[in-house]
Amino acid sequence: MSPRPRGLIAMAPDVVPAVLPPDLMTRLGAALRLDGPPVSTFDGAALAGVEVLVTGWLCPPLTPAVLAAAPRLRAVIHAAGSVKGHVGPEVFARGIAVSSAADANAAPVVDFTVAVITLAGKRAFALARETADLSGGLPPFGARCGNDGRVIGVVGASRIGRGVIARLAAAGHRVLVTDPCLDPPAAAALGAELVDVDELCRRCDVVTLHAPALPETHHLLDERRLSLLPAGAIVVNTARGSLIDTDALTRACAAGRLDACLDVTDPEPLPPGHPLLSLPNVWITPHLAGAQGREVRRLGEFAVAEVERFVAGDPLHGAVQAAQLPLLA
Amino acid sequence: MSPRPRGLIAMAPDVVPAVLPPDLMTRLGAALRLDGPPVSTFDGAALAGVEVLVTGWLCPPLTPAVLAAAPRLRAVIHAAGSVKGHVGPEVFARGIAVSSAADANAAPVVDFTVAVITLAGKRAFALARETADLSGGLPPFGARCGNDGRVIGVVGASRIGRGVIARLAAAGHRVLVTDPCLDPPAAAALGAELVDVDELCRRCDVVTLHAPALPETHHLLDERRLSLLPAGAIVVNTARGSLIDTDALTRACAAGRLDACLDVTDPEPLPPGHPLLSLPNVWITPHLAGAQGREVRRLGEFAVAEVERFVAGDPLHGAVQAAQLPLLA
Repeated sequence: MSPRPRGLIAMAPDVVPAVLPPDLMTRLGAALRLDGPPVSTFDGAALAGVEVLVTGWLCPPLTPAVLAAAPRLRAVIHAAGSVKGHVGPEVFARGIAVSSAADANAAPVVDFTVAVITLAGKRAFALARETADLSGGLPPFGARCGNDGRVIGVVGASRIGRGVIARLAAAGHRVLVTDPCLDPPAAAALGAELVDVDELCRRCDVVTLHAPALPETHHLLDERRLSLLPAGAIVVNTARGSLIDTDALTRACAAGRLDACLDVTDPEPLPPGHPLLSLPNVWITPHLAGAQGREVRRLGEFAVAEVERFVAGDPLHGAVQAAQLPLLA
Repeated sequence: MSPRPRGLIAMAPDVVPAVLPPDLMTRLGAALRLDGPPVSTFDGAALAGVEVLVTGWLCPPLTPAVLAAAPRLRAVIHAAGSVKGHVGPEVFARGIAVSSAADANAAPVVDFTVAVITLAGKRAFALARETADLSGGLPPFGARCGNDGRVIGVVGASRIGRGVIARLAAAGHRVLVTDPCLDPPAAAALGAELVDVDELCRRCDVVTLHAPALPETHHLLDERRLSLLPAGAIVVNTARGSLIDTDALTRACAAGRLDACLDVTDPEPLPPGHPLLSLPNVWITPHLAGAQGREVRRLGEFAVAEVERFVAGDPLHGAVQAAQLPLLA
């Protein structure tokens, strides 16, 4: 048996116990010979012998200088969703394997998004507020509704977008999808009808965003597209705040034309006193949808299994390719 | 072909267009010879020839006097969940077939309950309120969590309870169930472990109620059982308010020991100024979980298909037996 590869953990110190609790740390220690405790900076870290980096939230960028100091580095296994913050083209140019736990992070986002769509469709967020404000008494029956017969538009057939489509289609909803990487048969196989963004906006009663934050997707829902949505439509964003023109959305929600459920905003957090924070038809959560709290263990589990696969010479399940880098969330 | 049986629709007039929109009314008219427009009272209704009653919300009770006036009545097809309000033992004693659309009403309740459990597990309701109250700024990360590793207790393996168990078990959650009509293998087949109510309370971090309102289930969660729940547990009620001792729950929530998500309350609505209405860890919705708004069409669809089956001599899918009457929600 060959000796265990040398490894190092690099992530924010306060997340280590949640991402890699003792049992996972034991498994990691069985797969890798860990070069000291987890680090949160590469300044002064002993990188010379490191072959496998296990990274996580707030891992510092793998700059050319860091890479030069780690000549034996062969794999970067990320115990979180996006590697965009610390992995650049130079990592791939060196032939270093890169893996992300985006798959493990996707399930909680899908669950959260479907839950939000379900409750927003019932107008539950607004009616809960009214119930509290009325201090007893029930809001009028006629104001209640559901998503039956509504068209739901999914922007982005990402890992999360596909999960959301699958759940909505299984529940019998009519789903539209827009994604430049999809063709109509592939969309139909997912359970959705492929349309362009404008048509999606014109036809859907609920729009949920699952696209990456890229220059091309900046303000994907701008004033014009928001105005294409039918009155009473619900905008759900559990992806990235920059996908929506916040000012235009604020105007549409303040006018009562649209409702919104936003787990992400632009800027994030919104400045104190921002009108979106107090509108009765807007429900804002503080970037909760991804793996949080008890759920972050999933990221560690995925990463440890990935390390075990790498050490065994098996294919990585979360492999990231250089070509994907510009398209990552 | 035998002539169409004579039928009458009896429900609150304002729900008729939603439950039986034109296309369903056309189908109903093809299956039955309708004796005039829908009625909301049996006083003065032409019951003498009626063979099939299509009932709905607020259908008046089928008293002995009403039954005597409808000697040819053979079926009561209810386009809503519970027949308890209008069907008594004397209906069954006459050999009249009874059907309810409880199956069609269950799916929205399951969806709503699972959504509430998902978001409550994330502390999303409380964090959304904090986000709004902070007027910008994010609540601390450490306060966020999820349902991973939590034990979820389902009280009542009703139609809805079984649906909730199936969804939670499929998502990988550990589920306990309590139900006097279930044995351990049947519980295991559902994906849950059968325990008694006290053990369920002691072991679960989330408890969701799906039992009928009966004398035996009145205050099923009383002060003693609420005190068995671990600190930080979440109480979800989308069933009936009387299942919980409201005063005891109020004390536990006010003390911050328990969180609650209540779609039903006792009394309902709560009186103005009731402390539950303003607690930050309590989320109250106004009895929304069942089929509402766009969803009530499901009830009509179920009832019309049931009428068609009855007329064709096929078995009813929503048949209610006399023996079930005391156990109905």
